[in-house]
Amino acid sequence: MTHETAGCIFCEIVAGRAEVSLVHEDETVVAWMDLNPVVRGHLLVVPRRHAVGLEDLDVATGAHMWEVAHELSRTLRRSELRCDGINLLLCDGVVAFQTVFHVHLHVIPRHEGDGWTLNHTAHERARALLDEDARIVRDALERR
Amino acid sequence: MTHETAGCIFCEIVAGRAEVSLVHEDETVVAWMDLNPVVRGHLLVVPRRHAVGLEDLDVATGAHMWEVAHELSRTLRRSELRCDGINLLLCDGVVAFQTVFHVHLHVIPRHEGDGWTLNHTAHERARALLDEDARIVRDALERR
Repeated sequence: MTHETAGCIFCEIVAGRAEVSLVHEDETVVAWMDLNPVVRGHLLVVPRRHAVGLEDLDVATGAHMWEVAHELSRTLRRSELRCDGINLLLCDGVVAFQTVFHVHLHVIPRHEGDGWTLNHTAHERARALLDEDARIVRDALERR
Repeated sequence: MTHETAGCIFCEIVAGRAEVSLVHEDETVVAWMDLNPVVRGHLLVVPRRHAVGLEDLDVATGAHMWEVAHELSRTLRRSELRCDGINLLLCDGVVAFQTVFHVHLHVIPRHEGDGWTLNHTAHERARALLDEDARIVRDALERR
């Protein structure tokens, strides 16, 4: 029995049929260097079993991805690579910048002037509107 | 015994002494609407016990933050809020855009044209260099 999805490059890597620079593997997840690092040392933590994103990812597998990313973050800070901070990023969906449709968690070691930036226009939102947003989310939680 | 850190706004919120629009709370974490949302529906998942970042965050607490963020992500997709994708983001350190020094995980519902962008210049890195990066990380893992 296989859980691979045909044509998925991450399934190919997990199966050992594609080139990769591995940093960690266990029964549930594999971690490797991103082929297109935004900063040197950029890692991906990837579940062995194919899931597209948060919708079909098993909750326990997701938590383990996080644990491994946490450990790798601490490791990067102690490594010889430059690392003055860490961003952990998951991109779920095209609109959220997902480009490979096998769920993965980015571990990005950061340093001053590394060129990785977030652009947005955040403004303080009125409490009454935040309360309304929170009510909508709580209602949706109750329906689950 | 308290685990609060004086002057920490998130500790104040967790203790019930500051205004907040709550969506979830349990024994370990609390989740609320970000006061300065980058997109409407932007949530934070925050451990009750003060930790600055990934260095001092308990591993099990971190995994639970992730589980709650995962559940909230699925909930946002089913809510009345606009959500065609999700970004999960943790900012650890000033250089990684951390602004409140009580660790928190951003849950950001995304839609086309919402104005939240990532800027970087990612280029494919040669395999030999990726292998060297991976060796450095593996060496650091072994030293832990």
